[in-house]
Amino acid sequence: MAPQYAPSLRSRLAPLLLFLQTGFIVIYAFCTEIESNVKVDAITFRSFYSEFQDVNVMVILGFGFLCTFLVRYGFSSAGFNLLVAVVATQWAVILNGIESWYYRGKIRINLRSLVVAEMCAASALISIGAVLGKTNPVHLILIALLEVSGFILNEWLLKTLLSAQSLNSIMLLHIFGAFFGLMLTWMLYRKGSEQQFEKEKSDRKTGLFSMLGIVFLWMFWPSFNSILVDSHAPGKKLGAVLSTYLALAVSAVTAAGVSVLSSPKGKLNPIHMQSCIFAGGVAVGVSMSAIHQPWEAMTIGFTAALVSTIGFRYLKIHMLLAFECHDTCAVLSTHGLPGLLGWLAHLFLQIKDCDDHTTAIRFAVFHICTLLITITLSLSMGILTGLLLKWNFWRMPQNKKCFDDQAFWEFPNLAVRK
Amino acid sequence: MAPQYAPSLRSRLAPLLLFLQTGFIVIYAFCTEIESNVKVDAITFRSFYSEFQDVNVMVILGFGFLCTFLVRYGFSSAGFNLLVAVVATQWAVILNGIESWYYRGKIRINLRSLVVAEMCAASALISIGAVLGKTNPVHLILIALLEVSGFILNEWLLKTLLSAQSLNSIMLLHIFGAFFGLMLTWMLYRKGSEQQFEKEKSDRKTGLFSMLGIVFLWMFWPSFNSILVDSHAPGKKLGAVLSTYLALAVSAVTAAGVSVLSSPKGKLNPIHMQSCIFAGGVAVGVSMSAIHQPWEAMTIGFTAALVSTIGFRYLKIHMLLAFECHDTCAVLSTHGLPGLLGWLAHLFLQIKDCDDHTTAIRFAVFHICTLLITITLSLSMGILTGLLLKWNFWRMPQNKKCFDDQAFWEFPNLAVRK
Amino acid sequence: MAPQYAPSLRSRLAPLLLFLQTGFIVIYAFCTEIESNVKVDAITFRSFYSEFQDVNVMVILGFGFLCTFLVRYGFSSAGFNLLVAVVATQWAVILNGIESWYYRGKIRINLRSLVVAEMCAASALISIGAVLGKTNPVHLILIALLEVSGFILNEWLLKTLLSAQSLNSIMLLHIFGAFFGLMLTWMLYRKGSEQQFEKEKSDRKTGLFSMLGIVFLWMFWPSFNSILVDSHAPGKKLGAVLSTYLALAVSAVTAAGVSVLSSPKGKLNPIHMQSCIFAGGVAVGVSMSAIHQPWEAMTIGFTAALVSTIGFRYLKIHMLLAFECHDTCAVLSTHGLPGLLGWLAHLFLQIKDCDDHTTAIRFAVFHICTLLITITLSLSMGILTGLLLKWNFWRMPQNKKCFDDQAFWEFPNLAVRK
Repeated sequence: MAPQYAPSLRSRLAPLLLFLQTGFIVIYAFCTEIESNVKVDAITFRSFYSEFQDVNVMVILGFGFLCTFLVRYGFSSAGFNLLVAVVATQWAVILNGIESWYYRGKIRINLRSLVVAEMCAASALISIGAVLGKTNPVHLILIALLEVSGFILNEWLLKTLLSAQSLNSIMLLHIFGAFFGLMLTWMLYRKGSEQQFEKEKSDRKTGLFSMLGIVFLWMFWPSFNSILVDSHAPGKKLGAVLSTYLALAVSAVTAAGVSVLSSPKGKLNPIHMQSCIFAGGVAVGVSMSAIHQPWEAMTIGFTAALVSTIGFRYLKIHMLLAFECHDTCAVLSTHGLPGLLGWLAHLFLQIKDCDDHTTAIRFAVFHICTLLITITLSLSMGILTGLLLKWNFWRMPQNKKCFDDQAFWEFPNLAVRK
Repeated sequence: MAPQYAPSLRSRLAPLLLFLQTGFIVIYAFCTEIESNVKVDAITFRSFYSEFQDVNVMVILGFGFLCTFLVRYGFSSAGFNLLVAVVATQWAVILNGIESWYYRGKIRINLRSLVVAEMCAASALISIGAVLGKTNPVHLILIALLEVSGFILNEWLLKTLLSAQSLNSIMLLHIFGAFFGLMLTWMLYRKGSEQQFEKEKSDRKTGLFSMLGIVFLWMFWPSFNSILVDSHAPGKKLGAVLSTYLALAVSAVTAAGVSVLSSPKGKLNPIHMQSCIFAGGVAVGVSMSAIHQPWEAMTIGFTAALVSTIGFRYLKIHMLLAFECHDTCAVLSTHGLPGLLGWLAHLFLQIKDCDDHTTAIRFAVFHICTLLITITLSLSMGILTGLLLKWNFWRMPQNKKCFDDQAFWEFPNLAVRK
Repeated sequence: MAPQYAPSLRSRLAPLLLFLQTGFIVIYAFCTEIESNVKVDAITFRSFYSEFQDVNVMVILGFGFLCTFLVRYGFSSAGFNLLVAVVATQWAVILNGIESWYYRGKIRINLRSLVVAEMCAASALISIGAVLGKTNPVHLILIALLEVSGFILNEWLLKTLLSAQSLNSIMLLHIFGAFFGLMLTWMLYRKGSEQQFEKEKSDRKTGLFSMLGIVFLWMFWPSFNSILVDSHAPGKKLGAVLSTYLALAVSAVTAAGVSVLSSPKGKLNPIHMQSCIFAGGVAVGVSMSAIHQPWEAMTIGFTAALVSTIGFRYLKIHMLLAFECHDTCAVLSTHGLPGLLGWLAHLFLQIKDCDDHTTAIRFAVFHICTLLITITLSLSMGILTGLLLKWNFWRMPQNKKCFDDQAFWEFPNLAVRK
């Protein structure tokens, strides 16, 4: 009975995509210009470009292939990821530029604005990890639009209310994305959903595609964390790269160790390996600006992998049974917990460096407010989005079909028969 | 009956490869030198190198894995692509250097000459997409040698007759490759060929490899378009990167929308997704030098994806039934149509920018001549190559076997049995 | 009977990993600092970074996916490769820094030290190719630690005794890794091992993953060879890049030709294609500093591919039958023989360039000593490691199970059943 989705996709997805795209073109026509019309510094462009490509690889390929381990969902996870990423990026460029449009009449597009937009898109892709297989592509597009709007609103609030630095706000993307996704998946849970999780099976062969996505994320994470660090301070940038690299290395070893230790059969769990080896990268991303020594990064990486692996082993099922919150790709333990840990590490390291008591307390208050605003906003945007998606207009798919590529993709036999 | 190819490969492929390779070494020994013996600018080298690697990834990995969706042809498409690419690159370095050899006695090899050579190789790889599965590797090598020769001849003609700019001529590679391939596949069509297309089946799992190739092509297309843009004008280079990125983003969304809209079942077609999402990159590549605003690039991307997806849906089968022209990877709609569209966009944008009537007409005449020469040459070289391949000396394979890896590859059980 | 490994992994692997990782963190806490605290040159950092990422891709992804052709061992080869690489890299950073720690009290970590460490890790990964499927992950970690120690000791000996250049010693990694691995696999051979090789089967689909790893290695090999070349001499660096590229191109064509020629059925062997196409890269890596002309690099590439392909076809099985030395990934013909050939080419080219007789003889003696020390040390470290691994404490796995992912990995059905 696969065709039952067909009307949904045809009458909803196609108009939505074409309407959005035409709309974006019109907005871009009136409000944007390419920076190349202005003076560009050769060296800045060239050296930034290869890092931009690393981030691009992470967002398009890394996140896309991350979830191909779902045996019947490989095509959807890679394909819809690309679709969502480009819609979210185009939308984020507009939202991020509103201020400059207001003051200067034009949004100037350059590599940096694309990178920031891709990071906003990444936060949407994290949220989508939680609801994967419970939604159709129409929902994914809507989630991306709302998540990105919420994330950029959050950044604006942090900047306006707390004068937070732009880089630090962006790095909260892991926390924002994870909590938004969790709230959303909780909203979308319905009685009888358990059966659909039957299809959530991994596969040894497609699992290797997933490994590929993970390896790309793991390798280029140093670029992800360092790209927005002020390029006039190469020392800081190098510090971000090295801290992230060391934390990732430690995470990989720790995740493997903890996975074996916590397994009843004493074996490695490939899904642990895949989800928890970049816990260190997430945590260092959040706490980066306060890390000055290799061992600090490594300890953060160790703790993050510990928390993440244990969280994956015991928390995912607990969330489902106790809270009816089904987190497909375990974004809570992959992004949420390491993000929170990084936030905590940042707090400790910063306070340790403070000379006097007053500064320390001021920083702590500021830091806690940052987190509270972020979590509050992500949870409320999650609820809002959930309510929107429950509107039947979008044709919520039947549970059983959602994990199956065949609900969304046509696999024609290309052979031509006369 | 797989072994029937064996004599063909052994007595033709091996001597051809070893002869070509020894020949290349001899030619390189007498005619080339490495530029490193001369002064090299550190910054130029380093910043160019990472873009060179992006193009390398596109040519070797992107094109190689693009066609792995053919279920029984995965190995051949990845393996022969590499083989063809390196032969074509070595050959193109020689041909491109003839002029400098004539005047200076030596062909100077540097990163730029490798990049230009890889782009010539890319045009051969596009042609091969049209005949994939109808040829054996010997044919592929011959096609590559002749296609590259034709393409470089075309570039030389455009430069000599019309004083066309080198970058603009190279970017016609999509048009040249597509029409060369079409003519070739039309020449190679024989009555009874229809049955072989039975094997042209896609597969969900190997389809993911194809997705991988596509994603790499999609991600690094901005490098492909911008690498040869004058590096002393970083603004232009940035413009090329941003235009390509935006056009690609728009293409991805549009291709998905149109694919769903034109599907009888209202589903996404993975092959559309794979072939049409870089239509924007192709079109912008051809029209790049005339694009100044984001919306121009985006509109080109939108139209290109529209044309490409509709072309794929209706034109491929029409070409087969009406003209007996079987275009395996649909290079007409993937490279041909977007290339023509880019050419048209270039014409319009350039004329729009012209101040007076005379300049506009002069440009139009020049631009139309460029296209006419390119298409005439590509079609005639295609016929020539087709005639050569029909010569029985190369042992044209039986139709039925051509789509099957096992005709060309030995899959030994590596186990050693005493 | 898969669970029989479980106790081994749980009671050995987990403690080993967690102990090593905690130990590393403690050592890093007392002995290392990040260079960012010191002055960093912006341009050096940025241009080095993208090459660093290329090497990172080769070590983590390239070597990891190289051996996924083993049908039942895909996950292990990709997963354990990552694990071994990060442990070996952390260990190599410490060992390489001992001298600077002794004189300055701190090991300074920068991108260069990470790259050198990853190259040491690469030499361990080469060795592991020979014993793949005969060991459990505990052994792999131990092998990596000892191999890296031996390799760094070798480098130190060459530097101290012969005043060899650091770059040249590092490039001996192929020879060191291959002979260490051969000796080790000979030590680990036991009567009755033949049966296990039954599982050493390749597979058409996972073979494509292997192809992917190979393609990445092939593409980024120029970065691998050139990254440590003095960056103040961009001409030399460009020379290294171009020589490697040309040699690789020639190798690919030659390996294909020889593979077809030497096949009884006259077909291409995918494993040849995969192992022998970077013979040229290996050989040029070893002889790089003496290559000045394109044809020299190309001839080396040609010969290396010839030797490597023929070695693969006839030597692997001979080694097994005559010496009871089972070389899973044929590291002898992939890295050993091309490495030796590169060494020989270096000798010839350098002597050819010498003006007088005395210098030539001095260089020859020096060069031969370099090789003798390297081989002696690699063989003795191989024996030592073999003896250590034979100690039953590490629970040598039963032969039959070693090639099977299921012995080490848990593939849970992720579905939650209430």
